[in-house]
Amino acid sequence: MAGGIDFLFDFSLVLEGNLRNGEGITTHVMNQGLRRAERAAMTLASRQAAGEIGFPGLPFLEKEARALSRYAAGMRKRFTHLLVLGIGGSALGTKAVYEGVGGEGARKGLRLTVADNVDPDAFFPLLRRLPMKTTAVVAISKSGGTAETNAQLGLAVEGLRRAAGKRWKEHLVLITDPAKGAFRRFADSQGIDSFPVPPNVGGRYSVLSPVGLLPLAAAGVSVERLLAGARWMESTFLGRKGGENPVLAAAAVYSHYLIENVKPVHVWLTYGEGLARVAEWWQQLWAESLGKRRPTGTPVGQTPARAVGVTDQHSQVQLYQDGPADKVFTFVKWMAGRERGNVPASGFAPGAEILGGRPLRDLFDAEFEGTIGALWKAGRPIVRIEVGKRDEAHLGAFLHFWEWVTAIAGECAGIDPFDQPGVEEGKIITRALMGEKGSGKRREEFLRARKNRIPAEIRLADRTPGGPPRRGAVRGLRRGKG
Amino acid sequence: MAGGIDFLFDFSLVLEGNLRNGEGITTHVMNQGLRRAERAAMTLASRQAAGEIGFPGLPFLEKEARALSRYAAGMRKRFTHLLVLGIGGSALGTKAVYEGVGGEGARKGLRLTVADNVDPDAFFPLLRRLPMKTTAVVAISKSGGTAETNAQLGLAVEGLRRAAGKRWKEHLVLITDPAKGAFRRFADSQGIDSFPVPPNVGGRYSVLSPVGLLPLAAAGVSVERLLAGARWMESTFLGRKGGENPVLAAAAVYSHYLIENVKPVHVWLTYGEGLARVAEWWQQLWAESLGKRRPTGTPVGQTPARAVGVTDQHSQVQLYQDGPADKVFTFVKWMAGRERGNVPASGFAPGAEILGGRPLRDLFDAEFEGTIGALWKAGRPIVRIEVGKRDEAHLGAFLHFWEWVTAIAGECAGIDPFDQPGVEEGKIITRALMGEKGSGKRREEFLRARKNRIPAEIRLADRTPGGPPRRGAVRGLRRGKG
Repeated sequence: MAGGIDFLFDFSLVLEGNLRNGEGITTHVMNQGLRRAERAAMTLASRQAAGEIGFPGLPFLEKEARALSRYAAGMRKRFTHLLVLGIGGSALGTKAVYEGVGGEGARKGLRLTVADNVDPDAFFPLLRRLPMKTTAVVAISKSGGTAETNAQLGLAVEGLRRAAGKRWKEHLVLITDPAKGAFRRFADSQGIDSFPVPPNVGGRYSVLSPVGLLPLAAAGVSVERLLAGARWMESTFLGRKGGENPVLAAAAVYSHYLIENVKPVHVWLTYGEGLARVAEWWQQLWAESLGKRRPTGTPVGQTPARAVGVTDQHSQVQLYQDGPADKVFTFVKWMAGRERGNVPASGFAPGAEILGGRPLRDLFDAEFEGTIGALWKAGRPIVRIEVGKRDEAHLGAFLHFWEWVTAIAGECAGIDPFDQPGVEEGKIITRALMGEKGSGKRREEFLRARKNRIPAEIRLADRTPGGPPRRGAVRGLRRGKG
Repeated sequence: MAGGIDFLFDFSLVLEGNLRNGEGITTHVMNQGLRRAERAAMTLASRQAAGEIGFPGLPFLEKEARALSRYAAGMRKRFTHLLVLGIGGSALGTKAVYEGVGGEGARKGLRLTVADNVDPDAFFPLLRRLPMKTTAVVAISKSGGTAETNAQLGLAVEGLRRAAGKRWKEHLVLITDPAKGAFRRFADSQGIDSFPVPPNVGGRYSVLSPVGLLPLAAAGVSVERLLAGARWMESTFLGRKGGENPVLAAAAVYSHYLIENVKPVHVWLTYGEGLARVAEWWQQLWAESLGKRRPTGTPVGQTPARAVGVTDQHSQVQLYQDGPADKVFTFVKWMAGRERGNVPASGFAPGAEILGGRPLRDLFDAEFEGTIGALWKAGRPIVRIEVGKRDEAHLGAFLHFWEWVTAIAGECAGIDPFDQPGVEEGKIITRALMGEKGSGKRREEFLRARKNRIPAEIRLADRTPGGPPRRGAVRGLRRGKG
């Protein structure tokens, strides 16, 4: 890979020898954890061999990636803008890599907008801003049944029809299951271009499939280098034993704080432009893969929290430092930044002169070290990860690293890191509330339960400018209807 | 207030009668909580009377607000852009209100950029993008000693000098302590315009002081209506008893999950454009006010987590639904959205027809209710807050509401909700690493501790394009130096 890859996984500050307050991991426990991670990796390898798990093979689909690149090059000739319709795993990977490499202006390609909400106050203005005559639309839903993406697609097609008339189909690409679902039928029956989501790759593990690769390639990102970075991480993972293997070491450390010395919260503190979006991608991966019930019914899971350094030092560090010892911390930074500018040498107030005449980066780096140092002193378990720089190869390696770490941690915790049974209930109630046919009974049931609940609300409505609040309907604390 | 104010605080789904799994609050406990909140409010009232706490009085400084508005009107005549330099409480309130009312284009005023980081890869490009000849710079630091804001200011002044020569001072406004600190001395000695931060108002409670009001007024936001909304909430709070008082009811509910049935995580799910930024402001308020040690040494605090509806239903709800019962949820939405557009009636795939021919908002609203319904069914404690609409009066009321709720919850928890002792350690180490004079011993101490720590790191560096990873320096799991 041009420029090579640099990667550091430093778990010094989770070791018992460095954390003498009982929060650290002893050599014995770490070795146990490594063996547990190795066993989990073997289980996953057999699931992979059985065709159940597809994500580890994605980096090797080089031929398919080249075909996607060629298709994307054609899109770049025909359009100026790209609108991606998708939500969750259909959006977060694309956003992470696009912002990770530098966002708008960092690569020559279509101007990318990812629409991952159906908030009318966001989606309608977004549609109005786009020049639909030169906009390509990529709609992504593995099942084809995602309500949000369907609603977005209805509106986008309406816009394309207005802008391009009968040629609207030439603006549209669907990414969906190769054989089934509403999107697949729509693509096949209408003759709309489409790309497949491998059936054994779930949304949050799909960034290196066409789900991420097509939009990214169209936006000018080198998907070949992205895959090369992921292949490098895959071979690193396959080629190293125990404590020398960054994936296994990370899985051992994190599963310790997931299931042994349980920490309800896993905080990422990211230092470097673009990493905040990578953190959002990780947040889905970590929450949705690990937050679930074991077959025994016991819940497991960790709330992923994102903080941006140095900004959130002034917002969250007070809690991290003095609050409950219920967190494990991951600090992430780029090894090499881009900007090298100096702070001017003069004009500083007393006490601030140390800032002048030196790179601004000195301060940024010192705050990274200072925050780690302070949290370490407070006895917090801390992992430190450094990623060479903001380019495709490093992002491919980093994302693939986390996919493996998460999958293995889930396997260690005795849950399936690839399903998401808990999202169905909300969808069912939503569809019932929308009046879906056949949902009559469930809808009645839900509405009845809601009607029967004990109300406790304080409703204030003031129509008198400047005057005291009018007494609204206040109900509360009484059993029965308020 | 033009248009009036609507506000709903609904705590039905934390009541024991609606949550039969032991997670709910009984009438007895709620009444106890209300009394505790009332006592806490009285304690805070005496601290206010003693001049220790300033935030409740800010909404009443109407004369000062009018003066700020006039000054801001002058800025709007001279400039096109406004750059705010500040971090934490000096930035988050401004961002919350600006995005809350609609962000760029929603109000006629200077185009606002808030620089709240010293990441060189963010700050230098930002400076280059701004037309400094017509840019006003507002630098905010209560103490004047914030390292980040000092470094930013050095660079911004350099840019202003290049663009405006000797007239650079006319582009600059400082907001800082009225009497002391480096910013105050700088303003006074150089004859630079300045506005005061009241000494008894801390950063995270300062949005309604000049810290937030000046930038917002310059950006075209009506600070008079913002204050009017806060005054309305203040009089609501002062005029209502116990369970009819939204502030006291909220403080009773949240302090229950903070100190009695302890939930390590407080999740905000926001449904509506602009609310995500308000959530960031709240996140500092909640984390930094409540995350600390009691005088006895016991830690208290709750990790504030932000999720955006409906997007993060596809990222976090799996964890919320099936993961550990360690969270309390607050759902926030605007009562009235702006956009009323319909989804087209035709072209839907089987199963998705219910989406067509009706407002997109129907889906958005149904998902809000559906997610609440599903989490309720899973036995999670849920608060629901609805705020009339995206305007200044509602935001003023909402922010003031949370300032009171947070302060009272902190008082109930036996800690001081206005200090932040835990942020000092990181600053000290940072300054030591930067080579601050007089920090020699602390620096040596920290560097020695760091040198003596047991290393465990996996460092990978690959320079061979496409080949297997070269074996890097791998150290780990051995006591002593690696």
